[in-house]
Amino acid sequence: MKKQLKIGVIGAGRIGKLHAFNLATRVPGAKLTAVSDVDKKSAEKLAAELGIPAVYSDYKKLLADPEVEAVFICSSTDTHSKISAAAAKAGKHIFCEKPIDHNIAKIKSVLDAVKESGIKYQVGFNRRFDRNFRRVKEAVKAGEVGQVRIIKITSRDPAPPPVEYIKVSGGIYADMTIHDFDMMRYLSGSEVVEVSAAGTCLVDPAIGKAGDVDTCVITLRFANGCLGVIDNCRQSSYGYDQRVEVFGSKGQIIADNETANNTVVYTDKGVNREKPLHFFLERYNDAYIAEAKEFVEACLKNTDTPVGAFDGLQPVLIALAAQKSSDKGGTPVKVGK
Amino acid sequence: MKKQLKIGVIGAGRIGKLHAFNLATRVPGAKLTAVSDVDKKSAEKLAAELGIPAVYSDYKKLLADPEVEAVFICSSTDTHSKISAAAAKAGKHIFCEKPIDHNIAKIKSVLDAVKESGIKYQVGFNRRFDRNFRRVKEAVKAGEVGQVRIIKITSRDPAPPPVEYIKVSGGIYADMTIHDFDMMRYLSGSEVVEVSAAGTCLVDPAIGKAGDVDTCVITLRFANGCLGVIDNCRQSSYGYDQRVEVFGSKGQIIADNETANNTVVYTDKGVNREKPLHFFLERYNDAYIAEAKEFVEACLKNTDTPVGAFDGLQPVLIALAAQKSSDKGGTPVKVGK
Amino acid sequence: MKKQLKIGVIGAGRIGKLHAFNLATRVPGAKLTAVSDVDKKSAEKLAAELGIPAVYSDYKKLLADPEVEAVFICSSTDTHSKISAAAAKAGKHIFCEKPIDHNIAKIKSVLDAVKESGIKYQVGFNRRFDRNFRRVKEAVKAGEVGQVRIIKITSRDPAPPPVEYIKVSGGIYADMTIHDFDMMRYLSGSEVVEVSAAGTCLVDPAIGKAGDVDTCVITLRFANGCLGVIDNCRQSSYGYDQRVEVFGSKGQIIADNETANNTVVYTDKGVNREKPLHFFLERYNDAYIAEAKEFVEACLKNTDTPVGAFDGLQPVLIALAAQKSSDKGGTPVKVGK
Amino acid sequence: MKKQLKIGVIGAGRIGKLHAFNLATRVPGAKLTAVSDVDKKSAEKLAAELGIPAVYSDYKKLLADPEVEAVFICSSTDTHSKISAAAAKAGKHIFCEKPIDHNIAKIKSVLDAVKESGIKYQVGFNRRFDRNFRRVKEAVKAGEVGQVRIIKITSRDPAPPPVEYIKVSGGIYADMTIHDFDMMRYLSGSEVVEVSAAGTCLVDPAIGKAGDVDTCVITLRFANGCLGVIDNCRQSSYGYDQRVEVFGSKGQIIADNETANNTVVYTDKGVNREKPLHFFLERYNDAYIAEAKEFVEACLKNTDTPVGAFDGLQPVLIALAAQKSSDKGGTPVKVGK
Repeated sequence: MKKQLKIGVIGAGRIGKLHAFNLATRVPGAKLTAVSDVDKKSAEKLAAELGIPAVYSDYKKLLADPEVEAVFICSSTDTHSKISAAAAKAGKHIFCEKPIDHNIAKIKSVLDAVKESGIKYQVGFNRRFDRNFRRVKEAVKAGEVGQVRIIKITSRDPAPPPVEYIKVSGGIYADMTIHDFDMMRYLSGSEVVEVSAAGTCLVDPAIGKAGDVDTCVITLRFANGCLGVIDNCRQSSYGYDQRVEVFGSKGQIIADNETANNTVVYTDKGVNREKPLHFFLERYNDAYIAEAKEFVEACLKNTDTPVGAFDGLQPVLIALAAQKSSDKGGTPVKVGK
Repeated sequence: MKKQLKIGVIGAGRIGKLHAFNLATRVPGAKLTAVSDVDKKSAEKLAAELGIPAVYSDYKKLLADPEVEAVFICSSTDTHSKISAAAAKAGKHIFCEKPIDHNIAKIKSVLDAVKESGIKYQVGFNRRFDRNFRRVKEAVKAGEVGQVRIIKITSRDPAPPPVEYIKVSGGIYADMTIHDFDMMRYLSGSEVVEVSAAGTCLVDPAIGKAGDVDTCVITLRFANGCLGVIDNCRQSSYGYDQRVEVFGSKGQIIADNETANNTVVYTDKGVNREKPLHFFLERYNDAYIAEAKEFVEACLKNTDTPVGAFDGLQPVLIALAAQKSSDKGGTPVKVGK
Repeated sequence: MKKQLKIGVIGAGRIGKLHAFNLATRVPGAKLTAVSDVDKKSAEKLAAELGIPAVYSDYKKLLADPEVEAVFICSSTDTHSKISAAAAKAGKHIFCEKPIDHNIAKIKSVLDAVKESGIKYQVGFNRRFDRNFRRVKEAVKAGEVGQVRIIKITSRDPAPPPVEYIKVSGGIYADMTIHDFDMMRYLSGSEVVEVSAAGTCLVDPAIGKAGDVDTCVITLRFANGCLGVIDNCRQSSYGYDQRVEVFGSKGQIIADNETANNTVVYTDKGVNREKPLHFFLERYNDAYIAEAKEFVEACLKNTDTPVGAFDGLQPVLIALAAQKSSDKGGTPVKVGK
Repeated sequence: MKKQLKIGVIGAGRIGKLHAFNLATRVPGAKLTAVSDVDKKSAEKLAAELGIPAVYSDYKKLLADPEVEAVFICSSTDTHSKISAAAAKAGKHIFCEKPIDHNIAKIKSVLDAVKESGIKYQVGFNRRFDRNFRRVKEAVKAGEVGQVRIIKITSRDPAPPPVEYIKVSGGIYADMTIHDFDMMRYLSGSEVVEVSAAGTCLVDPAIGKAGDVDTCVITLRFANGCLGVIDNCRQSSYGYDQRVEVFGSKGQIIADNETANNTVVYTDKGVNREKPLHFFLERYNDAYIAEAKEFVEACLKNTDTPVGAFDGLQPVLIALAAQKSSDKGGTPVKVGK
């Protein structure tokens, strides 16, 4: 087995810094050898902090660097497919933040490029690596709940993003629910064949004016016959609400939120425990580390990555169907191919 | 204030016996003076056990008995509307088991008869009297969760009824979900305007052959703009699953199941607590007593009953819309009037 | 089997009324035939409410009433042993509120009288009938936690009684901890052989001036070798705290408090559930009914009562040892016989 | 502020490796420059893994190394005081695993040496850095539970150490309860003045033959008047049980165990959640990192360490009193000075 994977990070923003930090300090076998950002200063700052030798403003130069064996694509979403294709051609293994793209044709061209080059490809669906959801997956796989009948996901953000962001986000289903669509596929082990989405605007009228909804309930039908239901909201006063429930013929498994600690306070006002962790970086901190570890391991051991390029395509197809259904007032829409 | 209400029970089956027993021993002000059942032996047996003076096989004779001021209609569903109308004409206050009828015209004729006669009318939506759901209602009313956005109800039966019953049940939405439709109205304080139902058959193919589904997810839109989602299943291995969740702008309130006790056992196998109570008569035992108490009180104090005849109509209208949506593969359907 | 037990209630104060009400409405086979109280008006009022035919101011007349087969002794503690002995001689079955007496010799004379007369005797240790503690007992008995090693009881009152009461209460160990001593015997199935009590006064200095403590920790050694520990406080801001924990070679079982309902509220302030029920009459409502039912059943079926006269003696002996230990600053004291 | 602390690790056994790994990868500002172990191979292996430049078999040589500014003493307990004194003389900051020694005179000589040299000293009471107990401490400090009345600690190991270890361990109070004595001081903010310990042997008779107990309940009196109670057992079938409860005039705070995840499984067997984490290295993994971080920070910023040398002395004094009390059958014993 290869001992070390030389990695270049493309994009030194929030998520790029997060991955770079994890790769530098928490992921055995990972070695940061390069970083690039269109804003070269950001890249230089990160390189200085973590002792990364090569710094570029142009990702193409990073891809041409022979000291780079794998890349983490953490640039803006609209560049993911282009850089993915280029990296695949350059023979670099790829970890790409979600989504690969909003455009199906572009995603498919990435799939083709990956297939042709034979490199490893992993999409950043970090929630699959959360300790709670992993346990749910294992329970389902091991048959602990029997034949699955209904999967429920609650996913609510602590606060909505700026309306400016929402305008270019691709809509709630492509931007926010996409994680839940991936989780549905992960937990069910089956493909979503039809979606029905009921969306509304209850958090901020400005979101409605921007053509989007902020609160929604989405029903899914799976190829294996079971049903799924997701409820989303762009704002949750009590923090980041991330729960999952799988009900089957033998029972159910419920995954609760994570909290800052396990204490309970009893006073004359009631019995109080901690709120869910407020921010996704807190909640999924360990999951981000785990996904990077498994990517590096897959590259070093030459095994399959846990979330492949095809897994990057499916949730986008589901999101498109959900958006169409929502636009049509909830009429069920088949998921495309 | 009047001190005592003389009550006749119509129907001495399971639910009739339940109400009779509660009225005899647990409801202050209630006095059982008559009982009727088409199977006179059942009525006689119940009368003997509880010391009820008058026994009839024909409900009309019970309605003619001057020693009866109010009736509990616990006969088969297809007789509810007919007996309701007759009792209203006879000037008896009425507690009627749900549903009043599956036929909208018949229900409306009951509403007319009730209005005309000016008697008290209460429909047996017992779950409204459950201590947990009451607390949820109060929280919503008091604004503890802010403006409601999403209401979620999970309602699963421990075991499906016989297929013979299912054939005449009116379908899962009219037979089972009807309680949840009532709960949705109760908790939201708003009317359901549109329904979308996704049903499937995963518990028993015989249910499918009988033309019904056994597992379903129903999305609702309310007049006040919020969304609701119900998931039902005819079978739950771990008992009677009855949970409610109301999410709003300020937070959420979740009502959990009831259990036989509050103990937790730690062993090398895990940390184990009690399952939800298995049977609806256990779970809603106190709720049945509470609804009878409030009905008797409303009659004695001449105040409004907590669940009126109109509340008996609405869930049936919603159920009809849900059935239509389910038949159409989930297409949203407006609730009729 | 006898069908009905004719019962006289002696003492029409708070606990007498409670038992009378339960016997009248909730206990099958119980028939209230007489009531007595030194304050005859109280007895008359109760008789009127519940339709009890005979009313006395002198308990001796009640004992002489041939329409009385069993008595509930709910008078003041200092009269329990005297009335018990008299009732035993009169051949009446006896349910006696705890404690039988603070004086060992008097308790023993009751035991003798009971033995001689052959009547049924039950002491009012109501907590044994709580659904949670029953489940703990069953788990211990069934070996679910293996060989017991440590039993822990937390028992805290919502508010201290008036200092005037404390002065005549016999001290915290005889007045309050006595219930926990009984619970320890019940759960362990073994006798307490040695006690060590550390008491202090942290709630109200007036309690200290009255010669008592209000906060204490008591360690117990059992004949079977296991250990017990009780913590008590006369005041708990969050309500009546009644928890039990039994730890053994195979695991542990923990019984939590009872609450008004099972809801949880999530807001930006935290995740809040209900406080423990505040008052012992709420918490142990069902337990009071259950103990009366089992007493009546034992009388009617001629079986052993679940809490015999000997069970009334032991906790008093343990309380005496605890008081002595506390007075000596915590030095262990053997339990007398 | 100084940017980097050059650290030598003394002892390359289990806990030495743990600290070395944390210092190398998880503690900002820490730089491992040397490692020593009487078994030089162990030291060499660790040095190779973590890239530590200097390796010694004699700790004295490590203390003489000018590239070492601070040491982590992770050698066997009987060497802690000697090495502490030598390191203090050598002017190295010291992080010393608990306990400093079992001998009071030796501990005091360490205190003197530390005082004289003016170096930083921290004792490895890792549990103070657990996220749950920290929250309890903060709640107490902030007055959330009011004036403290009773502190309860449950501390049970998953499995007893080998009897050979027990023979030289100093007894359960010095070896195991010592952590709980420290936690008591930490949470109460007050000194323990008197102890009463009831010990027994229920896990393994061989432990009794070795002169020790394996199960015990210890009552403590604090200088500020409140009470404490600890229950310990050398074996817990369901894992490492580490809970804390602080009860005061305004309420209580309870810290529960840590688990592998937050899922709950419902089946016909019951409702099951994860057991407490089984092993102390899992449970306190983050606490070990936190204590090292705070030590390094204190050295770099020249501030007080969070757990000083005096904090190393007190629990040993309490343990001695507890052992004496246990030997005397539970008679209360004053804590020495």
